[in-house]
Amino acid sequence: MSTITEPPPSPIPLFTTVKAYREWRRRAYDERKSVGFVPTMGALHEGHMSLVRRSLAENDLTVLSIFVNPAQFAPHEDLATYPRTLPKDIELLMAESFNDTNTSTTRQASGIFLPTANEMYPSGISQDVNEQKGTFIEVKGYGHQMEGVSRPTFFRGVATVVTKLFNAIEPTNAYFGQKDIQQALLLKRMVRDLLLSHPDPEHVHIVPTARNPTTGLALSSRNAYLTTDGHKVAPTLIQALQAAEQAWGEGLTKAECVQKATEVVDATKRRAQAEGLNAEMKLDYIQLNDSQTFEIIEPQSSKADISHPVILSGALWIDKTRLIDNIILGDINTVIG
Amino acid sequence: MSTITEPPPSPIPLFTTVKAYREWRRRAYDERKSVGFVPTMGALHEGHMSLVRRSLAENDLTVLSIFVNPAQFAPHEDLATYPRTLPKDIELLMAESFNDTNTSTTRQASGIFLPTANEMYPSGISQDVNEQKGTFIEVKGYGHQMEGVSRPTFFRGVATVVTKLFNAIEPTNAYFGQKDIQQALLLKRMVRDLLLSHPDPEHVHIVPTARNPTTGLALSSRNAYLTTDGHKVAPTLIQALQAAEQAWGEGLTKAECVQKATEVVDATKRRAQAEGLNAEMKLDYIQLNDSQTFEIIEPQSSKADISHPVILSGALWIDKTRLIDNIILGDINTVIG
Repeated sequence: MSTITEPPPSPIPLFTTVKAYREWRRRAYDERKSVGFVPTMGALHEGHMSLVRRSLAENDLTVLSIFVNPAQFAPHEDLATYPRTLPKDIELLMAESFNDTNTSTTRQASGIFLPTANEMYPSGISQDVNEQKGTFIEVKGYGHQMEGVSRPTFFRGVATVVTKLFNAIEPTNAYFGQKDIQQALLLKRMVRDLLLSHPDPEHVHIVPTARNPTTGLALSSRNAYLTTDGHKVAPTLIQALQAAEQAWGEGLTKAECVQKATEVVDATKRRAQAEGLNAEMKLDYIQLNDSQTFEIIEPQSSKADISHPVILSGALWIDKTRLIDNIILGDINTVIG
Repeated sequence: MSTITEPPPSPIPLFTTVKAYREWRRRAYDERKSVGFVPTMGALHEGHMSLVRRSLAENDLTVLSIFVNPAQFAPHEDLATYPRTLPKDIELLMAESFNDTNTSTTRQASGIFLPTANEMYPSGISQDVNEQKGTFIEVKGYGHQMEGVSRPTFFRGVATVVTKLFNAIEPTNAYFGQKDIQQALLLKRMVRDLLLSHPDPEHVHIVPTARNPTTGLALSSRNAYLTTDGHKVAPTLIQALQAAEQAWGEGLTKAECVQKATEVVDATKRRAQAEGLNAEMKLDYIQLNDSQTFEIIEPQSSKADISHPVILSGALWIDKTRLIDNIILGDINTVIG
């Protein structure tokens, strides 16, 4: 766990306790102002900013949270080294504004919720699941596939912290990135199951993945871990998914689509070796899953056999960094709502 | 699961959907009226009424929920036969009022939330834990002791449904009976852990157990299952606990206190046999647990060794009915808040 340090001076109000935030929230209720919410783990980049822009445009007030959630990191994962860049995060937010032409006003982020681990976990929190005590939330049947295969307690950690954040923030609207599609869909389901009203399920929004305009690489805080050579090969993940997308569109089977994607990664590996790049690539998975049930599509199934949209997703290790990405096959609007 | 039937006509508004309730709740917010909440499974008796009275006295408005929650019954338990007595429940509530001498007004229950299982479990609900899908809440470390020993998924079901009810009802205050002490304390912890504000942890109230004034038997909906002979022996549970309480007060060890309690039950068994009563008694447990951690008190520990209040609790089978009861040893106010 990171050392607790004083937050830097900030032109945007920082709320370090639920209590302080709630006083602010009460005024927003009294003034009947809508509150948009962007939960983050900090290390803000253009992907987060696309969520912030959407929130600024759709709400009177916008609040971000920055909290690196211990419960969604396994003991062997990168909690300690996860990038923490608060002064830069604040700078980025200060540079972002929305012009409301109706009211001729300019809107900026109204606050950052910056809780300590104690504030979020009053019963304490261990990264070792077997030692954890206190209240945890599980979305059964939707957290063991896709990303859940290699990160079995990840979604439990996410569902738990997001419920707490929703209860603390009481947002009118909440914004999640499509890059973490399983997380976003699972949270929409959780909000519906728990009968939450702040936000209600219709106000949990999934925003298309922000990408490097040149390479197509999905933006991610973990991209900061990549070496120069790693950056050169990283776009192979979206290229692999695009190859599978094209094959799916042409009516090929799932097995064939996965094969096409794998070939793209293999080709990049060979090219990297030929060019002497120092970047070890290991494909974790390319998979196609039903967007409603998250169940794996049968190897022999093709577009013609499937009625729901399909999530085509992948994870790729580059050295010690694990990148993920996805494409929705079918009517994306019926999935992301 | 019970057949869905039309609710009876009622002078107290019945809300069968979250949506209908929320319209009513919005008016209460607008009028800045406090809402007291008494969650029940129906089959109301004087125990529930003691909670209702407290809520009427402390809130502008009082709402009950009546929902027999499938998720807190194991497949072999009494979900299908659990008493359902809605018309009588409504009558009882109509007979209860509170005179506010400050405003010279009389307050009665303002509404009953009466949801279907589909309304409470949008992802569906199976009693078989292995088949359950959707969102569930677990208070890890506090649900496996005491009542959790014989009912391993009970508190998961309770925590899940109460979170949903709190989210739907958004009460200012909520009332639980001391008879289900582990449930009440676990829910207080859950509310704190989840950073809930409706209610906040200080507004989750634990109300002393209502008892038959003559026999001391704790009131319970399940008492309705008892035969006449069963009723005659049922008070042995509180008598056993009182024997243990006295022994504890005298400085005896936990093991000795449990022994005293067991002897009371054994004596009643012998007396029942001598009198030819047709009631089979089986003591499930008598136990002493730390009120903060729920951990079992060591056999050789006595009053002098323990700083926290202690929960002295027991469960007794009479024929096919399982009764529970408890006494707090120590300053009850530091426990029930």
